[in-house]
Amino acid sequence: MNELRLPIADDMHIHLRNDERTEHAVRAVRAGGTGRVLAMPNTVPAVSNGAEAENYRRRLQDQGADFEILTTIKLTGRTTVEDISDAAANGVVAVKQYPMGVTTNSDDGVTDVRPLFPIYEAIQDKDLILSLHGEVPGVFVMDAETAFLDSLHDICRNFPKLRIILEHTTTAAAVDLVKELGDHVAATITDHHLAITLDDVVGSKIQPHHFCMPVAKRPGDRDALNAVVKSGHPRFFSGTDSAPHKVEDKETACGCAGIFNSPFHMQFLAHHFEESGMLDRLEDFTSRFGADFYRLRRNTEEIHLVREPCTVPERYGPMVPFRSGQTLNWSLR
Amino acid sequence: MNELRLPIADDMHIHLRNDERTEHAVRAVRAGGTGRVLAMPNTVPAVSNGAEAENYRRRLQDQGADFEILTTIKLTGRTTVEDISDAAANGVVAVKQYPMGVTTNSDDGVTDVRPLFPIYEAIQDKDLILSLHGEVPGVFVMDAETAFLDSLHDICRNFPKLRIILEHTTTAAAVDLVKELGDHVAATITDHHLAITLDDVVGSKIQPHHFCMPVAKRPGDRDALNAVVKSGHPRFFSGTDSAPHKVEDKETACGCAGIFNSPFHMQFLAHHFEESGMLDRLEDFTSRFGADFYRLRRNTEEIHLVREPCTVPERYGPMVPFRSGQTLNWSLR
Repeated sequence: MNELRLPIADDMHIHLRNDERTEHAVRAVRAGGTGRVLAMPNTVPAVSNGAEAENYRRRLQDQGADFEILTTIKLTGRTTVEDISDAAANGVVAVKQYPMGVTTNSDDGVTDVRPLFPIYEAIQDKDLILSLHGEVPGVFVMDAETAFLDSLHDICRNFPKLRIILEHTTTAAAVDLVKELGDHVAATITDHHLAITLDDVVGSKIQPHHFCMPVAKRPGDRDALNAVVKSGHPRFFSGTDSAPHKVEDKETACGCAGIFNSPFHMQFLAHHFEESGMLDRLEDFTSRFGADFYRLRRNTEEIHLVREPCTVPERYGPMVPFRSGQTLNWSLR
Repeated sequence: MNELRLPIADDMHIHLRNDERTEHAVRAVRAGGTGRVLAMPNTVPAVSNGAEAENYRRRLQDQGADFEILTTIKLTGRTTVEDISDAAANGVVAVKQYPMGVTTNSDDGVTDVRPLFPIYEAIQDKDLILSLHGEVPGVFVMDAETAFLDSLHDICRNFPKLRIILEHTTTAAAVDLVKELGDHVAATITDHHLAITLDDVVGSKIQPHHFCMPVAKRPGDRDALNAVVKSGHPRFFSGTDSAPHKVEDKETACGCAGIFNSPFHMQFLAHHFEESGMLDRLEDFTSRFGADFYRLRRNTEEIHLVREPCTVPERYGPMVPFRSGQTLNWSLR
């Protein structure tokens, strides 16, 4: 196969920030073959209610966003039931929960899920989606996602109609649990977690542009992510977790978590899916399963991928994109 | 206790390199309370025979080394039995084996120990020490040391009189095996592996100045290292693995492995041992057990540590020292 025509991609988890990086992050979306995004709310200041979500959407449009923006609000200890109703009334589609201190801009995050049950109830009532960064603060980095799975189970048991997404899933254990939990629970998988392991972060060299939270895990975990995608499981779909950190915030003594993969998102995935013998699953992963779980119309606009070498540049604005300097086998025409 | 008088420390594993970093690395030795070092041979070019070892020692002295230098040669696929005899004749005390490609300047390293048995025989005959970087190339970074333990066992079974040191030990499994293997097998432990885990390398932030090979492991592994030191086990002693990488080679897209801990070595260890309730074990760890295993006279020159705050500077020459910016409770007078 030398060309692929697919519906433009959904990115069900992206960071566009709200500062000087935003113009580049916005420009990267269509460059990478994406036409609809779920914009994460951990900006500074955070997006915490419906009005702020609507303002954030407008600011992104002012920055040149020529794609559809689905909005989220950040769930903190201060979130009220009214915030949820108000968010729903403002078209917000998901409420994002962060573990305290684990990742970028998460100091107001959550340490325990039980006190949030009234909020979950409201999210369920409004038929919004609960979007989870599933790691437990203070747990050893290789175990922090697995340690969260009990909480995920607990939430599911108590809110059987609540639609939940375990975001940027990294472990075989999480894949198994999401499969087991049934139709109201899904998972997003990033581009980079399909490709890298901890060896690519702290193998014989340290590579900050491969560092994100949750950190890439073991080869067997990466294999499990690829296997579930290859199986065509409809509750595992694409969310890049693309995060535009400036090079000086990555290549430093204490660097930020996040990988900027959106500018070559579909080029990379076509390359990776072909290499992994699952090119026939690409459209489901990027353009169908996510839309279906979110109960959105599927995208109809088409993108055109061709088998022509595409070298990822060393820089994209002030950022280093994922796979910089490497050549992918597919280009976006 | 407000002051400590100890014999000057032995550092049974240090990298002094052979370039513009050397003057700073040399200056750091006495600054950190060390008076005798085992200088690692993975310089560029490598130290591979007795004459090169002697030349390297002289170059270090020319660079201002005012401490005792014990020399090593690098074991590669090209090392001959004659190289071992020649090394012994030139006063070399240890032969250092690296796994291929796992760490700094190890591209000529070893992938399999069996072909080296004739060399081990010669090392045993000459009563030199076999010094092992115990990781298996190509194995996942968190498992690479444990994967080497079978080889360690194999070498010990076949060369019952060969004195072996498993360098910069990082795992509970390695500690257990070294204890079990008996009197001819020892281990060095670095300053940093007593203090950090993988969380300090790729927890919520990425910290290249905490990155070394073998990478810091789990909390339980760190606990096992501290426990064996606290127990006063005589076959576990200090080797800093201090490695002077320039800041631009650490804070970059693909950074070097190695932590520069020697300039505040004894200040840090006094602080850490006191915090860990094992200050009474410090002298054994830094000044007795290593000398005894190497069959060297014990150091008699004294150093004087006092309980006065000591802030580690942000830079030491072109390097960032371990614990830079932090204040230790002990100073060297």
